[in-house]
Amino acid sequence: MPAELITKEARVTDFARKRPRLQDLDLSPGKRARLYRLFYEHGPGGGTGMFLPIDQGLEHGPVDFFSNPDAANPQYQLEIARRGDFSAIVFQPGIAKKHMRDYAGEVPLIVKINGKTNIPPDADAFSPLTGTVEEAVAMGADAIGYTLYVGSPAQAEDFMQFVSVKTETDRLGMPLIVWAYPRGEAIEKKGGRDSLYAVDYAARVASELGADVVKLNLPVFKKERMADLPKPYNELMLSPKDAMAKVCASAGRTPVLISGGGKLSDDELLQKARECMEAGCSGLIFGRNTWQRKMHDALDISARLFELLRQHAE
Amino acid sequence: MPAELITKEARVTDFARKRPRLQDLDLSPGKRARLYRLFYEHGPGGGTGMFLPIDQGLEHGPVDFFSNPDAANPQYQLEIARRGDFSAIVFQPGIAKKHMRDYAGEVPLIVKINGKTNIPPDADAFSPLTGTVEEAVAMGADAIGYTLYVGSPAQAEDFMQFVSVKTETDRLGMPLIVWAYPRGEAIEKKGGRDSLYAVDYAARVASELGADVVKLNLPVFKKERMADLPKPYNELMLSPKDAMAKVCASAGRTPVLISGGGKLSDDELLQKARECMEAGCSGLIFGRNTWQRKMHDALDISARLFELLRQHAE
Amino acid sequence: MPAELITKEARVTDFARKRPRLQDLDLSPGKRARLYRLFYEHGPGGGTGMFLPIDQGLEHGPVDFFSNPDAANPQYQLEIARRGDFSAIVFQPGIAKKHMRDYAGEVPLIVKINGKTNIPPDADAFSPLTGTVEEAVAMGADAIGYTLYVGSPAQAEDFMQFVSVKTETDRLGMPLIVWAYPRGEAIEKKGGRDSLYAVDYAARVASELGADVVKLNLPVFKKERMADLPKPYNELMLSPKDAMAKVCASAGRTPVLISGGGKLSDDELLQKARECMEAGCSGLIFGRNTWQRKMHDALDISARLFELLRQHAE
Amino acid sequence: MPAELITKEARVTDFARKRPRLQDLDLSPGKRARLYRLFYEHGPGGGTGMFLPIDQGLEHGPVDFFSNPDAANPQYQLEIARRGDFSAIVFQPGIAKKHMRDYAGEVPLIVKINGKTNIPPDADAFSPLTGTVEEAVAMGADAIGYTLYVGSPAQAEDFMQFVSVKTETDRLGMPLIVWAYPRGEAIEKKGGRDSLYAVDYAARVASELGADVVKLNLPVFKKERMADLPKPYNELMLSPKDAMAKVCASAGRTPVLISGGGKLSDDELLQKARECMEAGCSGLIFGRNTWQRKMHDALDISARLFELLRQHAE
Amino acid sequence: MPAELITKEARVTDFARKRPRLQDLDLSPGKRARLYRLFYEHGPGGGTGMFLPIDQGLEHGPVDFFSNPDAANPQYQLEIARRGDFSAIVFQPGIAKKHMRDYAGEVPLIVKINGKTNIPPDADAFSPLTGTVEEAVAMGADAIGYTLYVGSPAQAEDFMQFVSVKTETDRLGMPLIVWAYPRGEAIEKKGGRDSLYAVDYAARVASELGADVVKLNLPVFKKERMADLPKPYNELMLSPKDAMAKVCASAGRTPVLISGGGKLSDDELLQKARECMEAGCSGLIFGRNTWQRKMHDALDISARLFELLRQHAE
Repeated sequence: MPAELITKEARVTDFARKRPRLQDLDLSPGKRARLYRLFYEHGPGGGTGMFLPIDQGLEHGPVDFFSNPDAANPQYQLEIARRGDFSAIVFQPGIAKKHMRDYAGEVPLIVKINGKTNIPPDADAFSPLTGTVEEAVAMGADAIGYTLYVGSPAQAEDFMQFVSVKTETDRLGMPLIVWAYPRGEAIEKKGGRDSLYAVDYAARVASELGADVVKLNLPVFKKERMADLPKPYNELMLSPKDAMAKVCASAGRTPVLISGGGKLSDDELLQKARECMEAGCSGLIFGRNTWQRKMHDALDISARLFELLRQHAE
Repeated sequence: MPAELITKEARVTDFARKRPRLQDLDLSPGKRARLYRLFYEHGPGGGTGMFLPIDQGLEHGPVDFFSNPDAANPQYQLEIARRGDFSAIVFQPGIAKKHMRDYAGEVPLIVKINGKTNIPPDADAFSPLTGTVEEAVAMGADAIGYTLYVGSPAQAEDFMQFVSVKTETDRLGMPLIVWAYPRGEAIEKKGGRDSLYAVDYAARVASELGADVVKLNLPVFKKERMADLPKPYNELMLSPKDAMAKVCASAGRTPVLISGGGKLSDDELLQKARECMEAGCSGLIFGRNTWQRKMHDALDISARLFELLRQHAE
Repeated sequence: MPAELITKEARVTDFARKRPRLQDLDLSPGKRARLYRLFYEHGPGGGTGMFLPIDQGLEHGPVDFFSNPDAANPQYQLEIARRGDFSAIVFQPGIAKKHMRDYAGEVPLIVKINGKTNIPPDADAFSPLTGTVEEAVAMGADAIGYTLYVGSPAQAEDFMQFVSVKTETDRLGMPLIVWAYPRGEAIEKKGGRDSLYAVDYAARVASELGADVVKLNLPVFKKERMADLPKPYNELMLSPKDAMAKVCASAGRTPVLISGGGKLSDDELLQKARECMEAGCSGLIFGRNTWQRKMHDALDISARLFELLRQHAE
Repeated sequence: MPAELITKEARVTDFARKRPRLQDLDLSPGKRARLYRLFYEHGPGGGTGMFLPIDQGLEHGPVDFFSNPDAANPQYQLEIARRGDFSAIVFQPGIAKKHMRDYAGEVPLIVKINGKTNIPPDADAFSPLTGTVEEAVAMGADAIGYTLYVGSPAQAEDFMQFVSVKTETDRLGMPLIVWAYPRGEAIEKKGGRDSLYAVDYAARVASELGADVVKLNLPVFKKERMADLPKPYNELMLSPKDAMAKVCASAGRTPVLISGGGKLSDDELLQKARECMEAGCSGLIFGRNTWQRKMHDALDISARLFELLRQHAE
Repeated sequence: MPAELITKEARVTDFARKRPRLQDLDLSPGKRARLYRLFYEHGPGGGTGMFLPIDQGLEHGPVDFFSNPDAANPQYQLEIARRGDFSAIVFQPGIAKKHMRDYAGEVPLIVKINGKTNIPPDADAFSPLTGTVEEAVAMGADAIGYTLYVGSPAQAEDFMQFVSVKTETDRLGMPLIVWAYPRGEAIEKKGGRDSLYAVDYAARVASELGADVVKLNLPVFKKERMADLPKPYNELMLSPKDAMAKVCASAGRTPVLISGGGKLSDDELLQKARECMEAGCSGLIFGRNTWQRKMHDALDISARLFELLRQHAE
């Protein structure tokens, strides 16, 4: 190296990752204040978050409520969130408007402002707006949820819609939590939506586009699909924890929340949560795994998850 | 359950449903005042509503007027609404503008601001705007009607159009009544538009997206289509009343109006109305079943329905 | 009928149709003033109108001028309109801007603000904007013309464009004259664009959507297409006058202008005009049937039509 | 003719065409002033115009510069325009911004604000915006150029874009010069883009839509394509001059500029120019036929064309 | 040449190209000041630029970081840029917002405001917005990056989006650097995206549309594809340096930055850089070729490239 040209010394920089801390992030006052509410004032705190999403009524329809009919009433989730001391509940605008009144302030609110039904095929999945950032601000929400279907053939429309939402959240100091979901026929041809390749890419896309927080799925390794994956993912088999650590590295300074997905047993759920938190996730966002349980069980598993997150509090 | 973590007591919460009451809903002053006019001041009142829709001239064409040619003249429906003391009449903007003059104030007005002809196929049904919220306000309307084709391949366009309408109605304090109709080739592949699966999903979507009131069809159970329904609907056969109760539960805090559909006999119509009201519906919105009858018969059946609703007044 | 509930008396209402009168319509002052100019101050008056449209240069190209080359020059139509004392001339914005100068005020102007060429196929016909309402106001026009292709697969785009135009015309007090033309592959499959079914439906759609005046074609009964028509039109054969009366009933309070279509003989044209006026039309809008004639003949037939309309003046 | 009705006398009207004169056109002050600069102050003047277009780098790519590599540098065209005393040069916005500085005022500027590459097929040709009217005004341009692909299946999008441009030019007093080019698969099926039918139709469309000046190609008669032409064009064979006179008649009060097209010999070019000017054109807009020649030759042919136009000056 | 008409003398004009100099370009004060920072104050200076782009995480996904995992952390690229004294770093908005804080001012920033994943096929490639010009200004960026897919079937959408971005950059005095990439099925049919035809055309398009700086690939000559190229490119084989000189000529007054593409050896990279600079390029924008190397090697190759650019400083 021609020393006469490179005169600057290395600045101490730690390329090894750890969970991003709110105080280290370059956030506007509004975003900082609201994320502080979610990650420090409510729920397990200490920089961790435990969120209760209930938009499955839109995404899947009432089918998800058959196993526990109480769950069809959003009051049910609000009671779980209140009694289980969740960091926030996640509602679509219509449900938020109809049900938050008696819990305002007590249970923080995240408004998901896009969504779709799963009735039409999702070969070119796109999640259209169902509300506005201003409407969420008016309801006292502390963050916006947005689903980005990474890799969908409709990604151009999605990115453009995302930019309009991001611009609004930046203007109003609202944190933007991105559901970064690989989806559509193109990703299915490349190994499927749950592969490490897909989730890892989704984590990076969310970070590149400006998510404040990202919600991701735990990668799944399916032997029969490995050959479809782009190199070098096609030969990469990792433990769940290592896979999640890889994904967290790709998310970089974007705190990662881990999705619950379909219902698991208590042990499976706790193990998944533990591995993800150890891998560098900042919190959990388990819907069906919480409210498809009866109230007592829901509060019980929530308490265990709460305890787990407390162990990762800083 | 680790008791040291779950310290909050259960708040008294009744997950069992009953018909939503206006005073329990978290509505803006404008929406509340206007819904009060529709559900308490006009029509049977006491929280029930009896609405007379006449947009079939747009949706189906003049074919619907052949059995009773008087019905082609909107004055006919206005006379039924006035003499039968309906809660409101529903017009497209053009008809409202041309015919409300002599009934203004006397017959409350709901303006339907989207619609389409049934000339092209509706595999990817979409109902474009035919008017604006401001125009309806200017005409003294008390609510906006909007058709949402739940599950249509065009749902993205529909949701985005809906958001723009909802934003306007929220801004102007106009109640938003959603015609939540499953439609399009995707739902036809999953058992058809009238199945419990379809109607139940539509009820929830309307609630999630922020309908103030929802108009739904009574689910129909067709044995030959059951196998096409998603689980667990494929094995669920309910009585009309139970089916409707299920749907009302999915609509939650969104009052349900029941559509009339094609013309029925007096007895069939009254039975349908009775079962729906007992199941938790808030009112009726029967078009062809009213104005396809001659004036005397129309007033007669309206009076019987009025009486039925009075029995459900609170 | 439970008399205790239906206490209101029948208001005197005449469901039988007659030609709508300007003074009976609920119009804004601007629309009323401008329609008064067209239907009372200029042309045959007394509530009738005789309009001279010349947008065929755009819709069909110069082919329509071969039989009478003078007609290629818009001065030709202006001279016919001036000397024949027409109610107004109809121009596209470009022609209006270039040619109205010497006739301003003397010949009232209607600006047609959408249109298309007939070069591409019209399976999903759509007529895009070619100008703006403000531009027409600036040119001193007394009305706006808009083509709505009823039943086209592109109807969603059409309706939405129409709403934007209607909103502007309402804001500026400009009457909106709708060319309600059934068009596109869907209507061709249902018996064709000129059937009573098609024209009748178009009349109602224009009225539902808020046309102030509607331009329609005289329905045609083609035996070989009857089977394709929806019930009960498939068995309905009416005389031209009865068919037109049916269509006028469907248009309701929207005054109907009758299109001329391709060139007819003097006798055929006069008979068609007579039957339509007797059926309840408010006027004629004959283009090719006027200006494809040489000046003397054009003025002659215009005078006869003028005389006919005078007979229907009120 | 019933004389009692037709009382107005014939106004002296000459339906025979001649070249439109600026002073006879009903133009806003801004359009008039700028067109005066182009047709009287610069170039051959006297109501004629000689324009130098150079947007082939965008439309065709650098292939057009191989025969004369100097032409790849826009300074080359600017020097031709300056030394050959052209009425104006035509640039895309990017080239105008980078090269006009040293010629500002000396060489009038027309900014072409739409365009496309010819890399994708043009079955449904559409020329998207590449700049704005305001940007052209800011650069001191004296007119706007816009390509309208007449008859393209994308004509709806084109017309709507055109309206937005026209509205801006009207607002800012900028003349609008329309490249009216028949294009797309539909016109190819009807005899091709260069037929009299196609060019004649394009001339009329530009006039109907509000072009201030129109750029057209000289029609070409191909015997083998005549059968594809709509009646009566399929049997119409005219001399170039008569064909052009027909086209000028269809353009009416819209001055016509004639395109050069691919490179011709000096004699062919002069003959074409002479015939077009005698047929009623207002000027020439020859690109490749000018700048594909070496400087001396380019100035030489320009001088001859200049002289020709002077002969048509008024 | 008729001397009496051509009286103007030739102005001294040098059609031979050299690298455009900032002081010769007609730029707004804001653009000039910001480009001065990039090409004179930071990096090798003297009118040359050495840029470090890192948006591959979005364009290709984390696959590009496997060979050097440190590179997944944007701090890595920032350290290279700071220690290697680059002219600027290029980030997507999300990464810029999260990582620039500690390097603000020290490392100039270019924000790339469109992008896409490579998961769906790119037959009709289009790069949607991922941010806004105002957002980049707010972050203290010195230029905007925009990818234009020249020749894509989606070019209409691309051009229109580009115009909106260009208008914003002009308004705010932000230099606009265009990634001019031939892409899509049409260019693949005409010899491929890396051919001289494709790159040469792209250079001209960027210049015509108003790029302030253009990023291009070095053309590649593939014998087996030559037959697919349009004339006369199909018979044109040039040395890399001559090919690049041809491309720079087509870019004209738009300074050219040369892309690195996939990773090369040190010698190949230096040779490529040398040839491009000698051919008239204004700088280098090598991403993977820099940060896929370990820190020491990255700084070493950067230093060599820096030295090379210094030799071309003016």
